[in-house]
Amino acid sequence: MKKIEVIQNVLEANEAIARRNRELLEKHGILGINVMSGPGAGKTSLILQTIAGLRDRLNVAVIEGDVASTVDAEKVQDEARAVVQINTRNMPESCSLTAAMIESALKELPLDEVDLVLIENIGNLICPSEFALGEHRRVVISSLPEGDDKTAKYPLIFVDADVVIVNKIDLLPYLDFDLAAFREAVRGLNSEALVLQLSCKTGQGVEEWRSWVLEQASLNRSGR
Amino acid sequence: MKKIEVIQNVLEANEAIARRNRELLEKHGILGINVMSGPGAGKTSLILQTIAGLRDRLNVAVIEGDVASTVDAEKVQDEARAVVQINTRNMPESCSLTAAMIESALKELPLDEVDLVLIENIGNLICPSEFALGEHRRVVISSLPEGDDKTAKYPLIFVDADVVIVNKIDLLPYLDFDLAAFREAVRGLNSEALVLQLSCKTGQGVEEWRSWVLEQASLNRSGR
Repeated sequence: MKKIEVIQNVLEANEAIARRNRELLEKHGILGINVMSGPGAGKTSLILQTIAGLRDRLNVAVIEGDVASTVDAEKVQDEARAVVQINTRNMPESCSLTAAMIESALKELPLDEVDLVLIENIGNLICPSEFALGEHRRVVISSLPEGDDKTAKYPLIFVDADVVIVNKIDLLPYLDFDLAAFREAVRGLNSEALVLQLSCKTGQGVEEWRSWVLEQASLNRSGR
Repeated sequence: MKKIEVIQNVLEANEAIARRNRELLEKHGILGINVMSGPGAGKTSLILQTIAGLRDRLNVAVIEGDVASTVDAEKVQDEARAVVQINTRNMPESCSLTAAMIESALKELPLDEVDLVLIENIGNLICPSEFALGEHRRVVISSLPEGDDKTAKYPLIFVDADVVIVNKIDLLPYLDFDLAAFREAVRGLNSEALVLQLSCKTGQGVEEWRSWVLEQASLNRSGR
């Protein structure tokens, strides 16, 4: 099973680089958050809402992962302190960011001027759960239109999440989504995760997310 | 670059198995359709709508790909002539079905009693574009809530599609989705693809999809 061995080696090498990334972030007092979801669930919108509300309190840099385009980086570039685009199309891993990609991106950022790095991962609920990036916190966005069965179908990505965001809550009247069942299913996989319901479009519930981010940044600075 | 070589070998081996799968389907006069989309865009709903409308005219078998659950197979099992579940969680490729998985699944199906095999791929817009399964036609579902920029971000999956379905069209009044721009972007990547707007929930537009399926099944039987 040669291929499986190669994958094992790739994941071990990734872990080592992820540890270095994390040390580099910590040396500069930076909090790193890995933002993950399927396509179109609202990663970029959450990042924009985060920056909009915290601009006066945190200097935010963004690392934008995308298979092929610069669409998201363009949306973010006027808002963030700095943005680095990573395109994975021709890389050995195209379905997730990896620690090596983040290591390259961190070299492009003015780390002394940054408090928070938001990493927008590739739109995918499978591959990103395998690759640590060196982040301190992991956020998974599950949007209402995707349905309330995502925990059953993509369990791994929820298991290690610090926050699970239920986005597009403004669409609740038009969809069949059982919020209680979804929360219960998240709890079954991961009893520690904070579950937040919000709408990046209307802003409903976003303040609670921003408070969590501020709190984590403060914990990070005090070394916890 | 050992890893890249291994990936190359994996893809070549996959192509060979895909050709065998296709020959096996053709020997039995079966049309195979690969149904792809991101998580929660409506693959299972499209399959259920297809069977519901064509049950009297085609015997439909379903191969259900899923990382970890049997949620979709359970929804389909009372409707289809036969269902095989594939769980990819512990396989070397967990983010896409592969031709080898389909080869195993076809052994479980009563091929002499089937006209159409619908293959529900893993919910992912990246990996499935790399793996031919032996299908005759490829369908990509892009649902309105995912946004109209999916062609820019995941171009490869659209390039080889025979049909691009814009699902959840019933949500149009509540979303910012530029249908004309989306159609134009699909055309830019793939001028041959048929683009269909429909709602698997309300049934709007589904008849046109069913007609296309019937036509393809008839072309397939006549060897074209």
